[in-house]
Amino acid sequence: MKTFYSPVHLHHDPLAQFEGGVLAPAVEIPVRVERVRDEIQARKLGPVLAPTPFDDAPILRVHDAGLVEFLGVAHAEWRRRYGENAPAALPSAWPARGLRDGRHGDIEARLGSYAFSADTPILRGTWEATREAVNVVLSAAQAIRGGDTSAFALARPPGHHPSADVFGGFCYLNNIAIAAQWFVDAGLRPAVLDVDYHHGNGTQSIFYTRKDVFFCSIHADPHFAYPHFLGFADERGDDAGEGFNLNLPLPAGTDWALYEQALAKGLAAVEGFGPDVLLVSLGLDTYIDDPIASFRLKPADYLRMGEKIAALKKPTLFVFEGGYNVDALGEISVNVLEGSAGR
Amino acid sequence: MKTFYSPVHLHHDPLAQFEGGVLAPAVEIPVRVERVRDEIQARKLGPVLAPTPFDDAPILRVHDAGLVEFLGVAHAEWRRRYGENAPAALPSAWPARGLRDGRHGDIEARLGSYAFSADTPILRGTWEATREAVNVVLSAAQAIRGGDTSAFALARPPGHHPSADVFGGFCYLNNIAIAAQWFVDAGLRPAVLDVDYHHGNGTQSIFYTRKDVFFCSIHADPHFAYPHFLGFADERGDDAGEGFNLNLPLPAGTDWALYEQALAKGLAAVEGFGPDVLLVSLGLDTYIDDPIASFRLKPADYLRMGEKIAALKKPTLFVFEGGYNVDALGEISVNVLEGSAGR
Repeated sequence: MKTFYSPVHLHHDPLAQFEGGVLAPAVEIPVRVERVRDEIQARKLGPVLAPTPFDDAPILRVHDAGLVEFLGVAHAEWRRRYGENAPAALPSAWPARGLRDGRHGDIEARLGSYAFSADTPILRGTWEATREAVNVVLSAAQAIRGGDTSAFALARPPGHHPSADVFGGFCYLNNIAIAAQWFVDAGLRPAVLDVDYHHGNGTQSIFYTRKDVFFCSIHADPHFAYPHFLGFADERGDDAGEGFNLNLPLPAGTDWALYEQALAKGLAAVEGFGPDVLLVSLGLDTYIDDPIASFRLKPADYLRMGEKIAALKKPTLFVFEGGYNVDALGEISVNVLEGSAGR
Repeated sequence: MKTFYSPVHLHHDPLAQFEGGVLAPAVEIPVRVERVRDEIQARKLGPVLAPTPFDDAPILRVHDAGLVEFLGVAHAEWRRRYGENAPAALPSAWPARGLRDGRHGDIEARLGSYAFSADTPILRGTWEATREAVNVVLSAAQAIRGGDTSAFALARPPGHHPSADVFGGFCYLNNIAIAAQWFVDAGLRPAVLDVDYHHGNGTQSIFYTRKDVFFCSIHADPHFAYPHFLGFADERGDDAGEGFNLNLPLPAGTDWALYEQALAKGLAAVEGFGPDVLLVSLGLDTYIDDPIASFRLKPADYLRMGEKIAALKKPTLFVFEGGYNVDALGEISVNVLEGSAGR
């Protein structure tokens, strides 16, 4: 299996994220991807390849041009406001009920109007890394399109939380949604399976009224977990998309016995959709010792997860998402990939 | 002039507020009110009186019952989530476009759904202080109702940012709006003049579609200043309230020469409304050395502000709002009050 990787992600190196009332050390950090790449090479999963550049067209097929423009200029606007050595940009006020949208306002208004959480810092190198992550994912998609049965986009920052015009959750652009749309535009019928601990609210939103992309997410119940405001079981799709969205929220403490039931259900639904290609939002924060999550999957469970996904026998694009135990991340990521490759 | 004051505000003693990408030392702190009280006593402005208790009915005339209930239980819910020694509760995710409202969700969802900014911490003593501030303001209103020509509600936390169902901006309940409605319910015709540096977005929202309460705010232009999402000159009221809302946004660096033109305009509009009673949101963050603001008013200007307000010859309830230079706050607050009392 080919892995696509670019060192440009190193330019996005956040120090802190605001959550739970504190500015805590960032968990979505460069070493995450570096550890996974090391493990891929140690276990000889296959070649690690540089991405090829893509223009903005595939991004603009799923994202609002205003969001894309904003992300490109946000840090420069923030520096003009707070100085060259300002801390990372984070929103601290937003247009709640009764307030006016601020997407055309100053940097504070724009940040608050384009974001849905204060855990997603914009640094000097954030846009460059974000843009390169899209190249990584689309390069992996291109490998699938070229006949590979699977590929791994080892991209960062992750991508499944942003909708067409709102970013958050350590994510800026929705990598997997951009790839899914790129497959649609190539005449294929994609399904997205999201196994990150957190609901893939952005991906869901982007395809929520459409029947040409199936979305299934297995995740911690938003009644207690981030992203709080989407990911409930009653979200089944709207309009033409009704029945093409499946959320399988699970309780805190979920172990493999419970998880595999949800996975079987999700995979059956994906199979029922009859996709040409499967895209997997591969979050590893379901791991028992993840520092910000509450599920209890063990290393061997990830081999099984890979096997079950592979049993669908569909060309499969794995896209790296969350997972914050950096000591385990290499092993459990590659377990999924090896499991899917039948090793 | 009677001043109403209660030491219960001391129970709301925040350490930090999240803004500009940093968790900075709180500026809305107990010493603010203590310094003003000291100055009132030193300059013998008049008696400093304890408030009498009011039930929740006047609060529920302007605020959504859900917000009031939430503020009462928020810190207990936060402690259940993050422990007895948790830092103050602050929202870090909110239901932006495309996300579901979380007012009936867990504490993180409720916080994000009821707040519009992350600068407004909820501590163990916040609700008690918030509730007592309403008693302070209504007690001062009662003095006016009883025939006093002016009164000062030295209340904290401040109140002009919350709308009926959204809090923020160091404020939890809208003290002055509760008092204005209480006057309406007593058969009077109130006007609110907001001279805080920041637009009184909550007060505006509460009365925006009504013609029985006039609202005028003189403030830093939201194109560069908090609250970012309301306070523009084109907001003139809606429906029956059209023409009963007047915003006078001013540029950074505004000094008394420019300010007094806006004040004259605002007071002329208030006079044109013909109120029975005037309520003044008395923010002192227009001061030249305020640590979070950019206007340039000097101590003597506040005497003139008081004189001009008094020239309307209406019973006047002054309600303490912002102002964060604790060394100047006593002098400039009492300058307004003395100026209005003709001393």
